[in-house]
Amino acid sequence: GIPGFGAAPAANDPMWGYFTSIAGQDGEVDAEELQRCLTQANFTGSYSPFSLETCRIMIAMLDRDLTGKMGFNEFKELLTAMNGWKQNFVMFDRDRSGTVEPHEMSQAITTMGYRLSPQGLNGIIKRYSKNGRIFFDDYVACCVKLRALTENFRRRDQMQQGAVTFQYDDFILCTMSL
Amino acid sequence: GIPGFGAAPAANDPMWGYFTSIAGQDGEVDAEELQRCLTQANFTGSYSPFSLETCRIMIAMLDRDLTGKMGFNEFKELLTAMNGWKQNFVMFDRDRSGTVEPHEMSQAITTMGYRLSPQGLNGIIKRYSKNGRIFFDDYVACCVKLRALTENFRRRDQMQQGAVTFQYDDFILCTMSL
Repeated sequence: GIPGFGAAPAANDPMWGYFTSIAGQDGEVDAEELQRCLTQANFTGSYSPFSLETCRIMIAMLDRDLTGKMGFNEFKELLTAMNGWKQNFVMFDRDRSGTVEPHEMSQAITTMGYRLSPQGLNGIIKRYSKNGRIFFDDYVACCVKLRALTENFRRRDQMQQGAVTFQYDDFILCTMSL
Repeated sequence: GIPGFGAAPAANDPMWGYFTSIAGQDGEVDAEELQRCLTQANFTGSYSPFSLETCRIMIAMLDRDLTGKMGFNEFKELLTAMNGWKQNFVMFDRDRSGTVEPHEMSQAITTMGYRLSPQGLNGIIKRYSKNGRIFFDDYVACCVKLRALTENFRRRDQMQQGAVTFQYDDFILCTMSL
């Protein structure tokens, strides 16, 4: 290919500036730095900025080496996933209240391709609701967690049988950080 | 036994007043009501009140019927567990800074009887730290989650083999709420 084409230099990426100015020397961000980064880039727009808790889950989703930090490539991977979720949310939040209703959240999760029992879906939605509605921050936390847990499960379900045998330590390791 | 002895009437329980005034008609509290209840009872004392996020995990730990709510008996069960964790925390927080250090957190978890690999322990502690220290709210969130996940695991590990086979839906159900 043409040199420098396809893999655009990070310097041309508008997010690169926010990221490097905050990541500093080690080139990685922890949860608090990620929160600052997303707030400065105004990712949530008119919605409230992400809570530290949600940023911790974002880090954990992509933190394969368990350092509690995230490099620029993981940051871009996160943004790609988040843009999809945001589009979904905005579509459902027609009245711009910053919240969606439980049945819309349920629809969103199903649209993303997760196959959960009605009981499972209900339990999840209740957990991420406030006064019967779901705010953007909680919606994203739910999406991040669902994706990360499903990936952790699939990575171990190599025969694609829909069942995984976990050792206790492994079970705790891949659920406690999320 | 002597009637009314041993099982003290709830009315004599100092926590009963806080609980019923907030629980109202249905006799149960959701996460927001639980937060108010623990704040009014000044459970955290000189430490910051519990975050809503931590209260949600508290509800999920004992929410066996998946209603997202907690009755008085579960509330008392929660307080019993929390008093133990609080004692531990206060013991480690000698300088009354409201935080403990990672190695103290690690010691606390080990003292509680959890057997985790050093990798697992480190991952957990990083997740619940802020600037390298662990605040009371995060410490309790970690204890609640660790207890609930371990109980979910043990309940399925009836032969006590330290290994459990999870179906996908069950795995998501017993991890997403925590």
